[in-house]
Amino acid sequence: MQKRIVIIGGGFAGINLALQLGKKKHYQVTLVDKNNYNFFPPLIYQVATAFLEPSSISYPIRKLFRNKSNLHFRLGELLKVVPESHQLILSNGTIEYDELVFATGAETNYFGMENVKRNAIPMKTLSDAIQMRNRLLTHFEEATLATDPAEIAKSLTIVIAGGGPTGVEISGMFAEMSRSIMRKDYPELKDADGQIYLVDGGAALLKPMSTKSQVNTYESLTKLGVKILLNSHVNDFVNDKVILSDGTEIVTKNLIWAAGVSAINFDGIPATSYGRGKRMIVDGLHKLAGFEDIYAIGDASIQSADPGYPEGHPQVAQVAIQQGRNLAANFIRMAERRVPRSFVYKDRGSMAIIGSNKAVVDLPKPKIHLNGFLAWLAWLFIHLMSLITYRNRFRTFYNWTVAYFSKDQSLRMIIRPVDPHEDPVVPAIEKSAAVESEKVETKNA
Amino acid sequence: MQKRIVIIGGGFAGINLALQLGKKKHYQVTLVDKNNYNFFPPLIYQVATAFLEPSSISYPIRKLFRNKSNLHFRLGELLKVVPESHQLILSNGTIEYDELVFATGAETNYFGMENVKRNAIPMKTLSDAIQMRNRLLTHFEEATLATDPAEIAKSLTIVIAGGGPTGVEISGMFAEMSRSIMRKDYPELKDADGQIYLVDGGAALLKPMSTKSQVNTYESLTKLGVKILLNSHVNDFVNDKVILSDGTEIVTKNLIWAAGVSAINFDGIPATSYGRGKRMIVDGLHKLAGFEDIYAIGDASIQSADPGYPEGHPQVAQVAIQQGRNLAANFIRMAERRVPRSFVYKDRGSMAIIGSNKAVVDLPKPKIHLNGFLAWLAWLFIHLMSLITYRNRFRTFYNWTVAYFSKDQSLRMIIRPVDPHEDPVVPAIEKSAAVESEKVETKNA
Repeated sequence: MQKRIVIIGGGFAGINLALQLGKKKHYQVTLVDKNNYNFFPPLIYQVATAFLEPSSISYPIRKLFRNKSNLHFRLGELLKVVPESHQLILSNGTIEYDELVFATGAETNYFGMENVKRNAIPMKTLSDAIQMRNRLLTHFEEATLATDPAEIAKSLTIVIAGGGPTGVEISGMFAEMSRSIMRKDYPELKDADGQIYLVDGGAALLKPMSTKSQVNTYESLTKLGVKILLNSHVNDFVNDKVILSDGTEIVTKNLIWAAGVSAINFDGIPATSYGRGKRMIVDGLHKLAGFEDIYAIGDASIQSADPGYPEGHPQVAQVAIQQGRNLAANFIRMAERRVPRSFVYKDRGSMAIIGSNKAVVDLPKPKIHLNGFLAWLAWLFIHLMSLITYRNRFRTFYNWTVAYFSKDQSLRMIIRPVDPHEDPVVPAIEKSAAVESEKVETKNA
Repeated sequence: MQKRIVIIGGGFAGINLALQLGKKKHYQVTLVDKNNYNFFPPLIYQVATAFLEPSSISYPIRKLFRNKSNLHFRLGELLKVVPESHQLILSNGTIEYDELVFATGAETNYFGMENVKRNAIPMKTLSDAIQMRNRLLTHFEEATLATDPAEIAKSLTIVIAGGGPTGVEISGMFAEMSRSIMRKDYPELKDADGQIYLVDGGAALLKPMSTKSQVNTYESLTKLGVKILLNSHVNDFVNDKVILSDGTEIVTKNLIWAAGVSAINFDGIPATSYGRGKRMIVDGLHKLAGFEDIYAIGDASIQSADPGYPEGHPQVAQVAIQQGRNLAANFIRMAERRVPRSFVYKDRGSMAIIGSNKAVVDLPKPKIHLNGFLAWLAWLFIHLMSLITYRNRFRTFYNWTVAYFSKDQSLRMIIRPVDPHEDPVVPAIEKSAAVESEKVETKNA
């Protein structure tokens, strides 16, 4: 009778863990996710700006698991863990585990600002991206109906909170769109003035990157017309006004929130197991503090065992991928009576794209800094290669090629699949499931 | 000062009318639609079955209107017409017209069956299609969780009401999917028994087509395993039971409604102007009975002036397209002081696709009937060519090629862009707009 590993979450960490375990058949593996697909967060912003289709950056998990007889998928949401009985209470039933792995990622963190949570557009999930696409396009249409210039500016102005890669990339994209596509699609608005603001609490954009990259980014975005506000953060968003920490008020209908994430706490896991940013405290073998058969990897976890990262690893894709693979290798080693290896993160560098033909790239060793066209090519190539299947790569490559030469895409449809009778996976606990899924939209995604 | 033509509805009829009027600049044209895109209804079912992306069969209207300086787009929904003052009350404001054209199409008709309306899945709009994709995939996931074979069958069984092209094409598609894709994606369900039923009130499928085509279709679908129930219609759909007119009960969660449409009545147009199926009664010049400056074309209209069609034209794409073009030509003739021409429908034949490699085609004159592979190629070619832009054609061709060779697609993602604060286009009349858009989901689409 094979041991059963249950993985919660089908993001970078969870999928990589599962696919590796699918190669050797030592375990029965069940991956649980509240979505039936895996997606590629680094390109969410291109879906949100109607440059890529959702299907370019997402893939059905069941199809990934095809012909891997020991991998199973389960659509559902974790409500509670019962470590004593090795049970998981899901939104649609109960399952048992021998080894449990949290790969639950992080969710958008509004730092307790209710108005922001209610009115801002998050940038974490595929649903967020489509929601943003629909809302911005609707606001542009509203602008075409307004006569008062102030009303128009309010609909067109966009404030992006958070100067990390997402914030930088999305503001660069909007800046370029407002020059090209917007002018062509909305001739009524050619004289309207909408602004693009990028707000960050720190002293520089792209904090973890080299000063060179930070400066390049700042200059390029400024040239594109993005108004960058540093050392300042969003305090509130009410009545179409974004209020900053220094008292500045920006009148807009559009606040995009890319300013922070936090991991998720689960019922059944004691508070003592959580560390900074609600992340689960694990050892070098990804084992959760206080448990023998529970692990956590990716954004959901934090560890101080890696000599290079005593403060814990950054919450980025590369860490999640490498941790998923390391844990898989360890499970296999244990099954083969070999010694598991402690995790050591190999930094592959970081990058951000600023616009067509512009990007910044920092490579760790040898320390190399690229910017401009070469960096842009590197960005495209690496992201293309990181997509999960050839299909996704082809779609995305095609979309990018079209977008590059036509400086345009044709995905600006406001499509809302309204389902009056959305039935949760199992009616029995309909209520809780529905409520939950509201609350933790981004949990397993 | 140019005359202003306002077109309500951006479907086949409305878009063709607008684009023709864009070629000569005799009029200022404003097209009003509650969606910001035009889409291709004949392929809706392929989006619903996750074979095509929404973007393969839809296109932003603003982009279609680019560089056509006399064409304007207005997102909004018609609430009321005030003929006396040549005014239109939209969900988001008021506009005036010199000439008004209804190209408002038809909406799903449930023949007053509230339960069916509440629980069935319609097949008219792009939102319907995505909703269907999401709901069926969710039901398949439910099936994987159930243990009782009856429960499983209930989730997998699909009843399609309506034996027209949509009903035929979608049941053929499901039959093939259940053999290939379902088996691969849901190994848990390989022994489950779900059935596909196609129900029609008439004595034959594809009523308007030749007996040859009807027989071919019946045989092909039966071979594929579709259970065809003729001379019988759906009376009710409650507690996961479809109840047919002959008393038969089919236990299922999935009723797809492709059994009828009706045009829409608008506040401000007298009852005397409506004929069979709520269609607006027009003369050979598409002019609405009782008005000098209001016209109706496409599914929304009915006329007896065409000698070949004393009972009115069928509600099909070709009629809508030809009427849109004829009315455009007439507007141009009038502007040039020439005599408008009465509409004469040129029947280009009808067709339906039954599965990979199978279709039926009837050509009118010379009377030719095709079936099998040749008909299938004809179907593909004609539909591909009918797509509105090269971009759509390429996307679709690519998707079809992949689907044909891989016998598969990778679009089976359940993506729900939940927007907690969907703001209607103008907050002022939020309520009515919201209510309306619920009520007339399919109106201008």
